[in-house]
Amino acid sequence: MLGHVDRLRGELVDLHAQLVRYGLVVWTGGNVSARVPGADLFLIKPSGVLYEDLTPASMVLCTLDGEAVDPSQSPSSDTGSHAYVYRHMPEVAGQVHTHSTYACAWAARGEEIPCVLTAMADEFGGPIPLGPFALIGGEDIGRGVVETLTGHRSKAVIMQNHGTFTIGKDARSAVKAAVMCEDVARSVHMARALGECVPIPQDAIDSLYDRYQNVYGQRPAPTA
Amino acid sequence: MLGHVDRLRGELVDLHAQLVRYGLVVWTGGNVSARVPGADLFLIKPSGVLYEDLTPASMVLCTLDGEAVDPSQSPSSDTGSHAYVYRHMPEVAGQVHTHSTYACAWAARGEEIPCVLTAMADEFGGPIPLGPFALIGGEDIGRGVVETLTGHRSKAVIMQNHGTFTIGKDARSAVKAAVMCEDVARSVHMARALGECVPIPQDAIDSLYDRYQNVYGQRPAPTA
Amino acid sequence: MLGHVDRLRGELVDLHAQLVRYGLVVWTGGNVSARVPGADLFLIKPSGVLYEDLTPASMVLCTLDGEAVDPSQSPSSDTGSHAYVYRHMPEVAGQVHTHSTYACAWAARGEEIPCVLTAMADEFGGPIPLGPFALIGGEDIGRGVVETLTGHRSKAVIMQNHGTFTIGKDARSAVKAAVMCEDVARSVHMARALGECVPIPQDAIDSLYDRYQNVYGQRPAPTA
Amino acid sequence: MLGHVDRLRGELVDLHAQLVRYGLVVWTGGNVSARVPGADLFLIKPSGVLYEDLTPASMVLCTLDGEAVDPSQSPSSDTGSHAYVYRHMPEVAGQVHTHSTYACAWAARGEEIPCVLTAMADEFGGPIPLGPFALIGGEDIGRGVVETLTGHRSKAVIMQNHGTFTIGKDARSAVKAAVMCEDVARSVHMARALGECVPIPQDAIDSLYDRYQNVYGQRPAPTA
Repeated sequence: MLGHVDRLRGELVDLHAQLVRYGLVVWTGGNVSARVPGADLFLIKPSGVLYEDLTPASMVLCTLDGEAVDPSQSPSSDTGSHAYVYRHMPEVAGQVHTHSTYACAWAARGEEIPCVLTAMADEFGGPIPLGPFALIGGEDIGRGVVETLTGHRSKAVIMQNHGTFTIGKDARSAVKAAVMCEDVARSVHMARALGECVPIPQDAIDSLYDRYQNVYGQRPAPTA
Repeated sequence: MLGHVDRLRGELVDLHAQLVRYGLVVWTGGNVSARVPGADLFLIKPSGVLYEDLTPASMVLCTLDGEAVDPSQSPSSDTGSHAYVYRHMPEVAGQVHTHSTYACAWAARGEEIPCVLTAMADEFGGPIPLGPFALIGGEDIGRGVVETLTGHRSKAVIMQNHGTFTIGKDARSAVKAAVMCEDVARSVHMARALGECVPIPQDAIDSLYDRYQNVYGQRPAPTA
Repeated sequence: MLGHVDRLRGELVDLHAQLVRYGLVVWTGGNVSARVPGADLFLIKPSGVLYEDLTPASMVLCTLDGEAVDPSQSPSSDTGSHAYVYRHMPEVAGQVHTHSTYACAWAARGEEIPCVLTAMADEFGGPIPLGPFALIGGEDIGRGVVETLTGHRSKAVIMQNHGTFTIGKDARSAVKAAVMCEDVARSVHMARALGECVPIPQDAIDSLYDRYQNVYGQRPAPTA
Repeated sequence: MLGHVDRLRGELVDLHAQLVRYGLVVWTGGNVSARVPGADLFLIKPSGVLYEDLTPASMVLCTLDGEAVDPSQSPSSDTGSHAYVYRHMPEVAGQVHTHSTYACAWAARGEEIPCVLTAMADEFGGPIPLGPFALIGGEDIGRGVVETLTGHRSKAVIMQNHGTFTIGKDARSAVKAAVMCEDVARSVHMARALGECVPIPQDAIDSLYDRYQNVYGQRPAPTA
């Protein structure tokens, strides 16, 4: 397990850098977490630390109750919510939270993002849903994420008046969802700014989603 | 021919980096392809690989039927469509596909981009046309590209609900068209956001296009 | 005191670089200042100098009357206003001024930014208020900043037809406020561009502000 | 004179890089020129060359008739217009042309940019005016620039359906005007997107312009 933890610490630093690179975060806002395989633990960004100051050692190891294993470290304000999601969605092993600009615009109006681009059908399999308003610091946001995404194809949810939360089979997959969520949030925003969008028929959405989830990408190397 | 292929592999890596530099792509989306001179082959981006991980060797050599020569490599999901275009437009030797933001906005509304800037008249010779909706993974997109761009001055097409495809006499020319397509898609979007645009008279468009295609740039070095 | 001044000169260079990194300034516009602890002095950007040419020695040491200690240096045009704020708000030890794009958009319309995002409630505790129109070069802007921010939770003010001024307990805190002010100015702009925003109830704003000001971040290292 | 030319060649490479840095140009579009002091000559960007390939030697030396001194070099398509401006405005020693996004948006609608920000009053002394539509390749654009900017405070003009031209007492000053023109074009665009702007009284505009032109910046070093 220690080997897993050490590897994940380095991966989390790299993945936080992707949030910066894609302009999804400013200053200390936003966070990525990763479940430790085979243990009731996860790693998450420390609270209030600048992205350029993140190191593998600064990532905070937490129990699934949302408590830091080393009580001298303060984990992200969203730790309780990440813990809630890990407890209630066993298939989730990575989560991301950002205040990315266009997702926040949909969030401030309290609107889901309609599926009018093939890239949305591919990655999210339909609209990106709206989750409830919830206060920061406890588990309420996590509860809203679980309620909204359970049984939904989308790995991203727009939390009302707040920002986006994404889940994935690992942290990299959740970061990808965060990057693509902002990308389509921006494109559909611009589309809607000048008029109405053409809907994509449901069977085409289903077909695009199926292909992207099952055919897209390189085949895994065969095991010997 | 091997020399051509090796040179093109390196060029394709550089050209994919231009898509990143100009912000036309995120994560693994988008692709560039290049026809191999003197052979029924082309090179294209591998499927689902991050831009920073692209290497000359990772570019997938394909037949004009859209099959990878080395079946252990998975080429881009759009390979069948690139192949269709190469088969039906012999003058085309490079293609680019992106989900760039403002082109996608026009695509989601199903609108062509009107020619209201001299830069559009220069590069595209008129409006950038809208192509049909088509599913990803087969040749349907390629068929839509060929139907839309055959006999049209524009080297770019906005595919409905999807993104942009561009063609060129080589891959560099197709990348230039992709960069300029997004640039004018954005400028005309902003223009239209605050009111109506002033049309450019057709004879001025014709004159601008003729000069840019025939006079612009450095003269080729004389052959000895 | 000399040690304080030398340290602050280097910090100010780094903090000016944050304005560039976050795209809040162009060419020579904008400035950061820092009060010298234990002295009636502050340091501020020189007037009309490019960000890439700033050095620790180029930062101009000024009295609280807004006069350069070394009269061969010309401090920022906003020096008189920074001085006015330092004289009238003793708790302020850092200030920032920018013409960042979205803050300027609210400024040109003469509108405060409504608090419709949790990130605004966290950092600003409510709306970002509008300050009066004032001419540049004297103390009028500083007077407007003090009148608007005295007794207000917000550390940022949008000055009509002009840009943003932010204050903080140190220069870093004022820079953070400038970065977050533009971030929320942009997100709320985009939200409003497509419709009405959902208000956040006042008790939720109060609760979010209280937690962020008192719990967020790492605990200070214990003094021995 | 040769020393002047050599120094200007290097400066022009640096100034073209500023256009890239500020996002004012894509691919090979846009150009900067500089008059050679004490000679009827100027230097300008070569036609159709990428910004990253520009070198001091590639800058094309031209006569005030717009002809390349070395006929093997092809200067920018706008050379005739730059030459026209240099012949008719002897106080101008630098010019810039770009298709920057927001300036193009005002250009496509055929609207001047109203002076609703203090930064505009500072740099441009009022609105940024609209110039006529003109074809590329001859002197017509230059004629439109001279007609529009003669007797006008603004160093920038928005040419209808085209882009922006700026003039200055040297090339650096013209680049500054191009950077600030796009900056205010964007801010005022965003302001107008959500409503009406508050006008700035004419006497305040006059006062701001006077101070910025005469007091702003560092005093020149005294000559011995």
